[in-house]
Amino acid sequence: MVVKSELKLIKNLQQKKYRNENGLFVMEGKKAVEELLESGFKAYKIFTTGQELQGAKAFEVAPISMKELKQISSLKNPNGVLGVFYKKITTDLKLEGWTVVLDGVQDPGNLGTIIRLCDWFGIENLICSKETVDCYNPKVLQATMGSIARVTIFYTDLTNFLNATKVPVYGTFMEGENIHKTNLPENGILILGNEGNGISDTVRKLCDYEVSIPQFGKKTTESLNVATATAIFLNEIKRK
Amino acid sequence: MVVKSELKLIKNLQQKKYRNENGLFVMEGKKAVEELLESGFKAYKIFTTGQELQGAKAFEVAPISMKELKQISSLKNPNGVLGVFYKKITTDLKLEGWTVVLDGVQDPGNLGTIIRLCDWFGIENLICSKETVDCYNPKVLQATMGSIARVTIFYTDLTNFLNATKVPVYGTFMEGENIHKTNLPENGILILGNEGNGISDTVRKLCDYEVSIPQFGKKTTESLNVATATAIFLNEIKRK
Repeated sequence: MVVKSELKLIKNLQQKKYRNENGLFVMEGKKAVEELLESGFKAYKIFTTGQELQGAKAFEVAPISMKELKQISSLKNPNGVLGVFYKKITTDLKLEGWTVVLDGVQDPGNLGTIIRLCDWFGIENLICSKETVDCYNPKVLQATMGSIARVTIFYTDLTNFLNATKVPVYGTFMEGENIHKTNLPENGILILGNEGNGISDTVRKLCDYEVSIPQFGKKTTESLNVATATAIFLNEIKRK
Repeated sequence: MVVKSELKLIKNLQQKKYRNENGLFVMEGKKAVEELLESGFKAYKIFTTGQELQGAKAFEVAPISMKELKQISSLKNPNGVLGVFYKKITTDLKLEGWTVVLDGVQDPGNLGTIIRLCDWFGIENLICSKETVDCYNPKVLQATMGSIARVTIFYTDLTNFLNATKVPVYGTFMEGENIHKTNLPENGILILGNEGNGISDTVRKLCDYEVSIPQFGKKTTESLNVATATAIFLNEIKRK
C-alpha cells in the first residue's frame, strides 16, 4: 500500500509547478525506467506491481497495487512500473559538434519527437528557451521513447546563450537558403522555432545564417511540422 | 436549423463504416474546406455559422448554429465551417516520378503527417495497403492540414500492385543499405511499414532494394517514428 500523501505527490507531479517545486518527475514503463537508471538519473522511488527492475537498488523499489497505480498514472493503461526521479541539474554544458536550440516549441509530442531525433543523430545537447514546453511533461516523456535518458536538455535565456557562443548559428526560416546547397561546418547551432510563429525576432537577429527545406509540391502547401523539419535538418547535417 | 437525421448522419461519418456505406466524409475548417473545393472534391453540403466560402455553390451551403455544430463536430472547439464531401474515387493512377507506399500504418497522426510530406515534396500518389488507417478519418484529415486536397490516395492490395509495377521498389528496413550512399533513380517506389512491425514479410519479398537511415547516436536508441523517417527518405529522394 502506498500512503495517501505519496499518491497525491505523484499525481501532482503531472503539473509543471509541482515538478519545479519538488525537483522530481515521473517516468512510466519498465524499459524507460531502466534506461533512466542506466544513464545515471537518480531514483526517488520506483513503484511496481511486481516486475523485476534492472539497476534499481532494493530500497528504491516499493510495491503498488494496480488500483493505486491507476489513480496516479497519466496513462490510460498503466503498465506496472512508475518511477519518481530527481530532475537532472545541468550546470556545465560541454558543447561539441552540433547543438539543437528550440525557441518556444509548445507541443509535447513535437518536443518528445525532437529529443528522440537528437538521440538518433547523436546530438548530445538540446537547449530550450524558457517558453519551450517542459521536457518532464508526461506527454513529452512518453513521446521520447526513453531518449530523454541520453540527451542533455538545458533551459536558458537564448539571447545570453547565443551571444556567448562561438560556433556559427543557423536559424530555420521558410525563406532561408536551400539547405541542400548550404555547406555546413563540423560544429554549429541549429535553431527551430515555435509551431505557429517560427523563430522570434529577438533570436533571428542572433542567427548567422538562415536556412530552409526546399518545397517541391504546389506552393499552397503549409509549412512542415517542426519535428519533421528537425528530422530533415539533422539528416542534412549528418549525411556528409 | 439542421434536421435531426442529417445531424445523425454527420456524426456517424466519424466512423469508417458509415463513411464507406455513404461514400462521404467530413472536413472541418474554412481553409481546409475551400482547399477541397478548389482541388475538385465535390461537396454534398457545407454547414457554416455565417462565414463566406470561396468556391462553394449557393445550393451547397447551409446555415448551422454553434450549438448544433458542437453536437456533430469532432473538434473540441469547432471553428464554424463543416463540409460533407463525396469521397474521391480513383480509378486510373498515373504513376510518375516517385510513389510512396504504406504497408499497414496505423496511427492517424502519422498518416496525416505523411500525406502532408507527400504534398511538400511533390509526391502525387500515395498507395496504402488495406490495413492502413482510413485517410478520411477525422484525425488524419486534421493532421494533413489541407494536403489531402493535393495528394491522390489509393487503397489496394499491395501484392498485386507491386507485382504489376515496372519501377524499382525500395523498402525501408532498420538493417537496409545506408540511404546516404544509395544512388536513387528518377522514378521509384518507397515503402514504409507499420509502426510496430515494419514492412510485412509478403511485401518484403517484392522489394528490389532495402534501405535505411543511418544512426549516429548510441545504439540503444529506438527506431525512428515512421512519419519522421518518411520526411528523411523523401528529402533524400528529392535533394539531388
